[in-house]
Amino acid sequence: MKPVWGGVEAGGTKFACIVARSPEDILAEERFPTTTPQETLARVIQFFTHNHPEKLSGIGVASFGPLDINPDSATYGSITSTPKPGWAYTDMVAPFKEAFNVPVVIDTDVNGAALGEHLWGAAQGLDTFIYLTIGTGIGGGGMVNGELIHGLTHPEMGHIRIPHNWEEDSFPGICPFHGDCLEGLASGPAIKERWGESPENLPHEHPAWELEAHYLAFGLVNYTTTLSPQRIIIGGGIMHHPTLLKTTREKVQELLKGFIQHPSLEEDIDTYIVSPGLGDKSGVLGAIGLAMQK
Amino acid sequence: MKPVWGGVEAGGTKFACIVARSPEDILAEERFPTTTPQETLARVIQFFTHNHPEKLSGIGVASFGPLDINPDSATYGSITSTPKPGWAYTDMVAPFKEAFNVPVVIDTDVNGAALGEHLWGAAQGLDTFIYLTIGTGIGGGGMVNGELIHGLTHPEMGHIRIPHNWEEDSFPGICPFHGDCLEGLASGPAIKERWGESPENLPHEHPAWELEAHYLAFGLVNYTTTLSPQRIIIGGGIMHHPTLLKTTREKVQELLKGFIQHPSLEEDIDTYIVSPGLGDKSGVLGAIGLAMQK
Repeated sequence: MKPVWGGVEAGGTKFACIVARSPEDILAEERFPTTTPQETLARVIQFFTHNHPEKLSGIGVASFGPLDINPDSATYGSITSTPKPGWAYTDMVAPFKEAFNVPVVIDTDVNGAALGEHLWGAAQGLDTFIYLTIGTGIGGGGMVNGELIHGLTHPEMGHIRIPHNWEEDSFPGICPFHGDCLEGLASGPAIKERWGESPENLPHEHPAWELEAHYLAFGLVNYTTTLSPQRIIIGGGIMHHPTLLKTTREKVQELLKGFIQHPSLEEDIDTYIVSPGLGDKSGVLGAIGLAMQK
Repeated sequence: MKPVWGGVEAGGTKFACIVARSPEDILAEERFPTTTPQETLARVIQFFTHNHPEKLSGIGVASFGPLDINPDSATYGSITSTPKPGWAYTDMVAPFKEAFNVPVVIDTDVNGAALGEHLWGAAQGLDTFIYLTIGTGIGGGGMVNGELIHGLTHPEMGHIRIPHNWEEDSFPGICPFHGDCLEGLASGPAIKERWGESPENLPHEHPAWELEAHYLAFGLVNYTTTLSPQRIIIGGGIMHHPTLLKTTREKVQELLKGFIQHPSLEEDIDTYIVSPGLGDKSGVLGAIGLAMQK
């Protein structure tokens, strides 16, 4: 019998938990909103306590951040400088290790999702690619040469600086650190603040979406020129808009102007910028992938 | 006796050639200006012909680009869409392979330089870092998890888009593809065109340098957030200005605003953004590194 793994996708808005042998063999799963660290982590422990804790070979955590993922650090596994109230310096590893006495592996939510897509989704067979999420925040992870991207810490792709179209967009951006970085201009809360309406309530033909595609395209062009990924997978709630992905692809091509000559950036752009193969489960399945990789 | 390698650093302005066993055991070297492809490649062949061609175990080429570095491609080893007159679609591998009948390996000039710095320079012991050159063009290469960055093609880091400070800088940028991408705003030719004077003739206290540091800092912040390198090595003729590196470091810190909590980005910024350990030889020594790696 294959081993059983626990997975936790820790998001700024909701948590997802899973107990599974593989994506085809899920023993239990649950989603709930993110509240305080105490309450939310207790609920994760409760979930595993009620779902075969004796079978778990390990737990993977794919968490929002920034995170301390340096195994040699005294604060390994903790969230660091998040602006999310109450969550700064929360240990996302020790509580689970203590409760279940199994190995616990942590990485960013987006590196987790990237691993999930690599194992079972839209990045199968690729060794250099990016996974982005456009939602409450903007984050990116991925692999280069078949390994998840880690370096000094981990990528914080949402915080790149891009040209701000001040002539048509006087909104200053909402990133508490950087103002008008990509996340500050194009995350869900940025859209809501700029237009005074939640993204899900904005009509599909509202000019918000053209501007959103414009900013996202700058981000994708910068990731493309910096990393040369074989594919960019782009998930998150904002991407549920029916034509945003298509408009973003078109704007990426407009901005690149044929500079990088490759079919993926020309006739095959639809297979270069794609939706996640695992839908909204990239993160939580990727979390079990993190546990498996250990 | 250790094997002997040939290295060619093919730059847009000059070529450097070397025959060596290692950086400490150089048998011959030469530099000459880049002219036409025919003339320049003939001069490379002439150099090796006069310097122990019978001893060569292989040749590495670290070339300006964009390049086709896909080994399965019919045009492997060729420059592709360069705006440099006469050089588009020049084969940078076959002429040397035919002349000397040895394996010839090619990568970008900046990936070559990154490898040189990794083997013998400022990136020894690091597995995730970036090498940038700021000169006739702006380019970047590097390693992630100990391997040179390759994906769909190779990085073209100079072509990221950054905020253009239109209020203080009405210069539209000179990139023939993208106008005001980083290279379009901050390469040597961009400085010359904006201020009407070659960078080497601009006084050290000229406002050109403050603006240069400003744009470079946006680039470095974007590479930092996208890749999380352990170090950024920054070479090229423009960096010979005595305080540009220091001013760029300061502006990187101002732009990051403490978001990524790590000593390298705080008190140790002087060891995060550094000059090449191999001086102006990163590229040509990296080229022999490419040949050795094969």
